[in-house]
Amino acid sequence: MGDFDYQKLDDIIHSRIRLAIMSVLVTITEADFNFLKKQVNATDGNLSVSLKKLEDAGYLTVTKSFIDRKPSSKYQLTEEGRTAFKVYIDQLEKLLGK
Amino acid sequence: MGDFDYQKLDDIIHSRIRLAIMSVLVTITEADFNFLKKQVNATDGNLSVSLKKLEDAGYLTVTKSFIDRKPSSKYQLTEEGRTAFKVYIDQLEKLLGK
Repeated sequence: MGDFDYQKLDDIIHSRIRLAIMSVLVTITEADFNFLKKQVNATDGNLSVSLKKLEDAGYLTVTKSFIDRKPSSKYQLTEEGRTAFKVYIDQLEKLLGK
Repeated sequence: MGDFDYQKLDDIIHSRIRLAIMSVLVTITEADFNFLKKQVNATDGNLSVSLKKLEDAGYLTVTKSFIDRKPSSKYQLTEEGRTAFKVYIDQLEKLLGK
């Protein structure tokens, strides 16, 4: 790599669990909590906190509803989230010299 | 990506600044503090703490000497560090589905 400011890497996305969540969501339209939990191998608590942080950053939205009287939450990336992920990957590749 | 445990990503390497340091050191034999500082765009304090953490993990070694009566520290990756970096990149690519 050349002269690279590591702070260009989006810190919201860079955390391991949030990177895993974003990597799942970028490939699909939406996902529910349990699907994400299985894909990312996270505990309920860690997943909840991480999803909230991504939501607060404007990178994903959550739609809550009831299915058979059970609450269901669907998560999907916003356009802002998709753009931020693309920028993150570009910066990561620059950092790694790829 | 498929079913992936984000905790497989080496946390020692994954921090943005340590990832930047490893990315520099993996391409060269050794580097001194000021060169790393310039490459990584870090403050002295952050760089020192990060280098110490990588040294404690066994990923790099430091050789201290005097050049023209000034102290000089040379940093180089250990074999363990190079292997850990390769594993990290492999895991990262799996996570990102690349």
